[in-house]
Amino acid sequence: MEIGMVGLGKMGYQLALNLLDKQHKVIAHDANKEILAKIKTEGVTAADSLGELVQSLTPPRTVWLMLPAGEITETVFTELLSSLENGDRIIDGGNAHYKDSIERGKQCKDKGVYFFDCGTSGGTDGARNGACTMVGGDAAVFKELEPIFNDLTVKNGYLYTGEVGSGHFLKMVHNGIEYGMMQAIGEGFDLLEKSPFSYDYEKVAKVWNNGSVIRSWLMELTENAFSKDSHLDQIRGVMQSSGEGKWTVETALDLQTAAPVITLALMMRYRSLEDDTFTGKVVAALRNEFGGHAVSKK
Amino acid sequence: MEIGMVGLGKMGYQLALNLLDKQHKVIAHDANKEILAKIKTEGVTAADSLGELVQSLTPPRTVWLMLPAGEITETVFTELLSSLENGDRIIDGGNAHYKDSIERGKQCKDKGVYFFDCGTSGGTDGARNGACTMVGGDAAVFKELEPIFNDLTVKNGYLYTGEVGSGHFLKMVHNGIEYGMMQAIGEGFDLLEKSPFSYDYEKVAKVWNNGSVIRSWLMELTENAFSKDSHLDQIRGVMQSSGEGKWTVETALDLQTAAPVITLALMMRYRSLEDDTFTGKVVAALRNEFGGHAVSKK
Repeated sequence: MEIGMVGLGKMGYQLALNLLDKQHKVIAHDANKEILAKIKTEGVTAADSLGELVQSLTPPRTVWLMLPAGEITETVFTELLSSLENGDRIIDGGNAHYKDSIERGKQCKDKGVYFFDCGTSGGTDGARNGACTMVGGDAAVFKELEPIFNDLTVKNGYLYTGEVGSGHFLKMVHNGIEYGMMQAIGEGFDLLEKSPFSYDYEKVAKVWNNGSVIRSWLMELTENAFSKDSHLDQIRGVMQSSGEGKWTVETALDLQTAAPVITLALMMRYRSLEDDTFTGKVVAALRNEFGGHAVSKK
Repeated sequence: MEIGMVGLGKMGYQLALNLLDKQHKVIAHDANKEILAKIKTEGVTAADSLGELVQSLTPPRTVWLMLPAGEITETVFTELLSSLENGDRIIDGGNAHYKDSIERGKQCKDKGVYFFDCGTSGGTDGARNGACTMVGGDAAVFKELEPIFNDLTVKNGYLYTGEVGSGHFLKMVHNGIEYGMMQAIGEGFDLLEKSPFSYDYEKVAKVWNNGSVIRSWLMELTENAFSKDSHLDQIRGVMQSSGEGKWTVETALDLQTAAPVITLALMMRYRSLEDDTFTGKVVAALRNEFGGHAVSKK
């Protein structure tokens, strides 16, 4: 098929190459001219503007958006939609909030454009060699687009999830689970680090990946990480987050659903961003006030 | 090799058959005469008593204990040790507390017996077809026993972890991680269940097992569970625990290590054991006291 790919960042670039491998015609656009020139050398057709991309595609057009959530996605989506025609399709493969996707689905519907919200998992390696996608949108048109998802993903690696919004919702929850799993793995190794024993963490992760209950891709990544830096001495324990965990927790609040472990995993990420905490100062000051307990002075 | 297997419960029975498949001579004992008679029909030599088991084995003897942690393990260990001789070996493949294992290691050492604490993971299927083991004890004697671990486990599925105690400590932490992962998975599906969308949970677990970041054996088990009961309508959300999670949290306290997600996963299991909570009653009563908020009457 012929696919327009907008956004050639860590994921989009790899997805474009993956599609190219599977004999699709890919016309790509990115605001970054260097990346655009680079992907041209790989055999992808480069479009210098969104308008040029739209003009290059044969109707009904299929455009895959792979952009950071928020303003960039909104701006590009709005510009793109204004130049698309009845029957065209937009697949948003990024991590948009599912409520934004529902709203974009409505805007598309008003113009006769089909909108698909596609959660994409598996990291950059997955994007290049076989990802996992969860896709919401029109069921009949999804059937037409199915070869794209079949080709981009590993075997059994795509799921049509129902109406618009359901794809990004599912991907959001996937990421929430990921937060909990990762925090649990982190805490486990922290216990080993503070234990009276001396473990080889790479070997521990390796044995846990072979026959144990907690064998998982995340544990394989743990094994990789320890193989490069046996005690992770080269990095700090600062745990960034890119929004999906926060959305999961906000959604849990909206739905009045108890998701305490996912919530706490997110909070521990926030805690990790601070060298010292105001919470700690307040508690230390109070202990000093009522019991004369020593405080650590700055 | 020749191995005595004491304890033919869910795990021990399968381990005995697994060893038998690999051409080891297995002499087994269990207090339950029926199970003992049953395993005899599978080709395992049955010993009616611990004493008979010890007498049947050629020195240096190797006896694998596979018993519930606590009193049973302690009783059998003590009786067994009293009848073993210098150079014999005990492998405790159960889930003993690592501090108990350290203590048992000392008692064995006093008698010239080698004690190995072996954490065994992978469930009953793993015990039968390839488990994952983490083993602490004497390094030189471990080398002699290595064929047993090699045969009982999947490829790369065993690890010599160092001194006595390190095997069960590692298995304990493994289970703590398992608690966190399982709670995160549970919360994720709870969010899907309360979402505005209608998901097929078996298909969700399946797609997450193919190419996603959270692919894991636990997610495969999730897929299995939903394949049998699409909304788990046939069971209640009561989450039992068998001690290892509690030990992990107690150890985190001992080591002054923050393991909040593992701890909370355990607490949520306790919460699930109660239909109503006293906490809830107290909070509801207080809301009524200060704000006249309605309470749910019994």
